[in-house]
Amino acid sequence: MPVSPPLTHPFDQAIALAAQDSHSFSGATSPAYWNMIGPFGGITAAIALNAVLQHSQLLGEPISLTVNYAGPVAEGPFTARARPARTNRSTQHWWVELVQTDANGDEQVSTTATVVTAARRPTWSASDAPMPDAAAPDTLARAVRPGKLAAWLARYEVRPLQGDIPQHWDGQASADSLSRWWLRDDPPRPLDFAALTAMADVFFPRVWLKRATRVPVGTVSMTVYFHADSAQLAASGSSHLLAEARAQAFRNGFFDQTGLLWNAQGMLLCSTHQIVYYKE
Amino acid sequence: MPVSPPLTHPFDQAIALAAQDSHSFSGATSPAYWNMIGPFGGITAAIALNAVLQHSQLLGEPISLTVNYAGPVAEGPFTARARPARTNRSTQHWWVELVQTDANGDEQVSTTATVVTAARRPTWSASDAPMPDAAAPDTLARAVRPGKLAAWLARYEVRPLQGDIPQHWDGQASADSLSRWWLRDDPPRPLDFAALTAMADVFFPRVWLKRATRVPVGTVSMTVYFHADSAQLAASGSSHLLAEARAQAFRNGFFDQTGLLWNAQGMLLCSTHQIVYYKE
Repeated sequence: MPVSPPLTHPFDQAIALAAQDSHSFSGATSPAYWNMIGPFGGITAAIALNAVLQHSQLLGEPISLTVNYAGPVAEGPFTARARPARTNRSTQHWWVELVQTDANGDEQVSTTATVVTAARRPTWSASDAPMPDAAAPDTLARAVRPGKLAAWLARYEVRPLQGDIPQHWDGQASADSLSRWWLRDDPPRPLDFAALTAMADVFFPRVWLKRATRVPVGTVSMTVYFHADSAQLAASGSSHLLAEARAQAFRNGFFDQTGLLWNAQGMLLCSTHQIVYYKE
Repeated sequence: MPVSPPLTHPFDQAIALAAQDSHSFSGATSPAYWNMIGPFGGITAAIALNAVLQHSQLLGEPISLTVNYAGPVAEGPFTARARPARTNRSTQHWWVELVQTDANGDEQVSTTATVVTAARRPTWSASDAPMPDAAAPDTLARAVRPGKLAAWLARYEVRPLQGDIPQHWDGQASADSLSRWWLRDDPPRPLDFAALTAMADVFFPRVWLKRATRVPVGTVSMTVYFHADSAQLAASGSSHLLAEARAQAFRNGFFDQTGLLWNAQGMLLCSTHQIVYYKE
């Protein structure tokens, strides 16, 4: 009888799901990926994706994920539901939701998501987003991210090339909102779809960079388009990824952010977009 | 008793929904927005959004829309369902699906979507995506889009600045996949959320521009982030919008596209992203 390897990495523990019935899984929030008042959004996105990846009816591999942060996630257990809305010959469309039971015994939806999976076939391929020139990770200092502020910050090794989080919250507006850095799990972990999904949300809020003012923020919706298959992700190993993100507009309480993540060999692994609430 | 204005514009006819019950609406596909083997994807996205806009429980205005093209849409009637998954004090998260009954009497989901709506408040605002310099629309020729190929092409006035659809399908790869053009409804129509949503899907497939080869394609998922509120959209009137889109990666059957739409005054109205299937 095959024995599963022990779940030693905190990421694997954080996204672990136990099957309840054919469309439901149980999980629990992880202290290792806790943010200030709830889980790190990237881990929530990875859990939503994992509900599809663990589903017995899964066809193919992830192409697209949109996760909507609908309400607060309380510390403790949750249920993840994944259901195929439509299954075609080579593509499949999924509904996903994460729910918790509140103090009144009522079910509350904290997260909604849609996922598209597909069987990929080799075709003509090209990139219109080459990896920017970047000094090697080992020549750059690791960014200081006080894990006591938010535990999840300690779970990522970030080595900034430009656009690190402001060192002085002096309200001096920045000319642009571009951050570019090398990034990997801490401790290092072989790359897969769930880990890449979480990494797509590691960027601190662009409005903080733009304004050097730490206004309250919260991601509303995030999308990830996967350009790599599982073999290409596995081939990336636990090397650093080059990640960049920039905002496009900040207006009346919401800004958007668009980002790209390449592996160390320069292969674009995913593009990612999000819209974020900010106050003031 | 107030009288609704007649539905004279084909766009309004195409997205019209009649309430069935509190969460369901009936509609029908429109010949005016027909593509080659189904409706123009932009009109399907606008219908999904309209189901939320018409819902009696709607809170606020659209912030984010993700629409997934799950299966073919047949000519004829459909049902649009919209249901709030979670309603907070100032934001609301929606599930939307479009379904049809097939020849066996079974319900088939053709489209899934999630929508976030919110009450927007004035805040500090800025743009990191200024409108590019562009010659005025009346100095540019209208692109030739044979409406006999696909009826919806005649519903948009496109005046290209660069990256028009290839005039010669000679397989000569293009250096990039950027298209930039002025765009408006034909006949002109005052801008609103539904119309802007449809316009976000007017870009022809980037893989055609990149390869000058007309391979089969189909959008899998599209996201729109709205940066303008209804008053700002209304203030844009029926003037041309400047629209641009570019691909980032083409790999093994799927490419992504990222786009921006500004009004004639240079205000960024939305950013939009999609992932598209292509064959070969």
